[in-house]
Amino acid sequence: MAKKVAFKQIEGSITAPKGFKASAVFCDIKRLGTGKGSNKGQKHDLALIVSDTRASLAGMFTTSQVCAAPVKVSAKRAEGGYARAVVVNSGNANACTGKQGLKDAEAMTSITAKALGLKAEEVLVCSTGRIGLPMPMPNVKSGILAAAPLLESTLDAGHSVAEAIMTSDTRSKEIAVELELGGVTVRIGGTCKGAGMIQPGMSRTGARPAAGLHATMLGFITTDAGIEPVLLKQTLERAVAQSFNRITIDGDMSTNDTVLVLANGLAENKAISSVRQDSFGKFQEALNFVTLELAKMIVRDGEGVTRFITLHIHGAQSAGDAEAAARSVANSALVKTSWFGGDPNWGRILGALGYSAARIEETSIDLGYSSPGSSRITYALRKGQPTNTSFDTLVKLVAAKEFDLHIFLNLGKHETVIYTSDLTEEYVEFNKGDVSDPKSLGG
Amino acid sequence: MAKKVAFKQIEGSITAPKGFKASAVFCDIKRLGTGKGSNKGQKHDLALIVSDTRASLAGMFTTSQVCAAPVKVSAKRAEGGYARAVVVNSGNANACTGKQGLKDAEAMTSITAKALGLKAEEVLVCSTGRIGLPMPMPNVKSGILAAAPLLESTLDAGHSVAEAIMTSDTRSKEIAVELELGGVTVRIGGTCKGAGMIQPGMSRTGARPAAGLHATMLGFITTDAGIEPVLLKQTLERAVAQSFNRITIDGDMSTNDTVLVLANGLAENKAISSVRQDSFGKFQEALNFVTLELAKMIVRDGEGVTRFITLHIHGAQSAGDAEAAARSVANSALVKTSWFGGDPNWGRILGALGYSAARIEETSIDLGYSSPGSSRITYALRKGQPTNTSFDTLVKLVAAKEFDLHIFLNLGKHETVIYTSDLTEEYVEFNKGDVSDPKSLGG
Repeated sequence: MAKKVAFKQIEGSITAPKGFKASAVFCDIKRLGTGKGSNKGQKHDLALIVSDTRASLAGMFTTSQVCAAPVKVSAKRAEGGYARAVVVNSGNANACTGKQGLKDAEAMTSITAKALGLKAEEVLVCSTGRIGLPMPMPNVKSGILAAAPLLESTLDAGHSVAEAIMTSDTRSKEIAVELELGGVTVRIGGTCKGAGMIQPGMSRTGARPAAGLHATMLGFITTDAGIEPVLLKQTLERAVAQSFNRITIDGDMSTNDTVLVLANGLAENKAISSVRQDSFGKFQEALNFVTLELAKMIVRDGEGVTRFITLHIHGAQSAGDAEAAARSVANSALVKTSWFGGDPNWGRILGALGYSAARIEETSIDLGYSSPGSSRITYALRKGQPTNTSFDTLVKLVAAKEFDLHIFLNLGKHETVIYTSDLTEEYVEFNKGDVSDPKSLGG
Repeated sequence: MAKKVAFKQIEGSITAPKGFKASAVFCDIKRLGTGKGSNKGQKHDLALIVSDTRASLAGMFTTSQVCAAPVKVSAKRAEGGYARAVVVNSGNANACTGKQGLKDAEAMTSITAKALGLKAEEVLVCSTGRIGLPMPMPNVKSGILAAAPLLESTLDAGHSVAEAIMTSDTRSKEIAVELELGGVTVRIGGTCKGAGMIQPGMSRTGARPAAGLHATMLGFITTDAGIEPVLLKQTLERAVAQSFNRITIDGDMSTNDTVLVLANGLAENKAISSVRQDSFGKFQEALNFVTLELAKMIVRDGEGVTRFITLHIHGAQSAGDAEAAARSVANSALVKTSWFGGDPNWGRILGALGYSAARIEETSIDLGYSSPGSSRITYALRKGQPTNTSFDTLVKLVAAKEFDLHIFLNLGKHETVIYTSDLTEEYVEFNKGDVSDPKSLGG
């Protein structure tokens, strides 16, 4: 972090802010038939996140037309602007499960509420895992009842949630920062999961934006800052727009994508109540950092991923063109496999631009590479034609595990950035699954 | 071919119709540094197709905004409606090669014309191979000069062209039929290539259709039927719309996609001059068959492909919705990898429908499988919910090398079909290439 920022990174994640407790257990949601209701041994698959007091709430949800039961339940509750707790499971997405799925999602909130002495309306629910299987409610219930008495405000408790929500993730994803708002120290903590089925396009209501984009990814953010729900929603929308909605691993948007933020005000700052307050800008900056770092962790830990590419589109004629050009390149199977091979195959990149919905002019395009975040670009193409940069130089640039790709369309002033990955044999191997062992199958 | 058709399949390909000659040579277009101008030893990489007399001509070309120099040259010449010859090479796409590329493409036609005693305007040119490398014109010229004296009308000569145009193809693709038009026997022959970068969306001018769709594929069709150019264009457009434009392997449209048909009238049928003639309908039916069989050969020989899926969308609210739903499912990395694994993962299919631009209602969707072409569908889903068909039954259905997937949206009357494939580790391995051996790298 070379630039001057108003926050600093601290240890921990969702339990770093004051007044948040967490716990996680294994309750055999995949019905592997081993022991359940335990927090030892097997990887945990059910977790609780609870605020000591009522918290302002904002959520962003998948814009897929096939959205999971917990998304339907939580999106509706998020409208109210307040919550106390979240129950989350991995191993079953509770998606495409019909009316029973909705009942089960609601039951998860009421069981949690009862165990914690809350109202069901104060509890949100998130799920991730295989689509189309009924929720094993007896297991879920015993899991919730086992998790409730284990709630703790330790950093380890936060870490246990980060692990419980993992599916194909190879590592947990956590971050926390602290900042000063009006002389008071506040904290923001976050965790997320996601490795495949990753191209989120979330909105506040789950409704499709006018120009809809296209993991399951789940993200949970807590803060002890005080902020009015309406402003928390605005700030989350801006934060997600520059983070989770800017990543793609495989181009497949999930039925379950959800990001929730709970702000309980226990830091006792003067509550943020206007976008014109300095504190709003500072909070936004810190939340942008938290969400972007979490989003990048998802791409770096993507299924089979060996390379992390930051793709910049410059000079598009419209915002829609910038978006279309970026998604077309970032989701091209041929471009992604060339990145896996460390092959600076700009021909495939031009090909993907050529068939995109964005207006492009082949003879206007400049294309180059830089180290991550650097403005020193080595050009492979100028005006659509190869520069005299040698093939070996380009090979070295794209051999890096992380690099930036810059595409200048030179047709206008619109730009965008997408964080993406290569496509590898390991991704295919992982996702083809093993039908002889259905319980091993992914989402 | 169970249904009664007005044509029968015969041996051969582009030299099966009267008055067509062909030849192919190796001229080292990839500059591997081995011998050139030979038709022995190395796989041929340059071919000629020549009609003994002036032929009606129609062409369909990639709608990519980055289109290769030979596409630009040939699309312009196709407007005139007549031609005598085609020169085609593999190993270099002559795409993204600027003004020099255009000069080279034109020079290929003028060198061919001179060698054959024709005008350059009567010659079309097609290329396929790596993008962004200059054409090795000395090799190309020696190749054309070596190929011209080898022209023959034998079936073997046609076969040599089918082999010369192969790139990542593992086998040549050829077909021929004969039919009666007004008591006269006419023939249609065809060959094509394509295995990766396959999702053609061609139009007659290379201009984008109002709702643009998204390999390199090259297709060459010859016929000794007599037909006016304006009708030949109509019939080709209809034929391509139900064949080459209905396939996708990897979702990447190429800069070079081209299909050409030459009709020299040497069968001496009464030339087709109206869509209302019986002969027009018969010719269309035969051309539809030839193009669809060739298109399917491309998918079955796709890079790393192990499964061939015919995807039917039924009951979409609009033609655009049917198209969007079909492309979203057929190009989903998660759906394609599940097909590779033989995993009947309808959750991923619903996911891909959910994020598509098509309007869908989860609770309206029926989804099932059948043997290729059969109307006996085994349903996995009814109204968005699992049927009682067992997992093992579904596994058996998708374990087949070829099956049909039927998706009923139940929202309207529009339908479409897409021919597609799985996504395998071999595809990734092939396309990651080997940068230590740049000459091995694909398009």
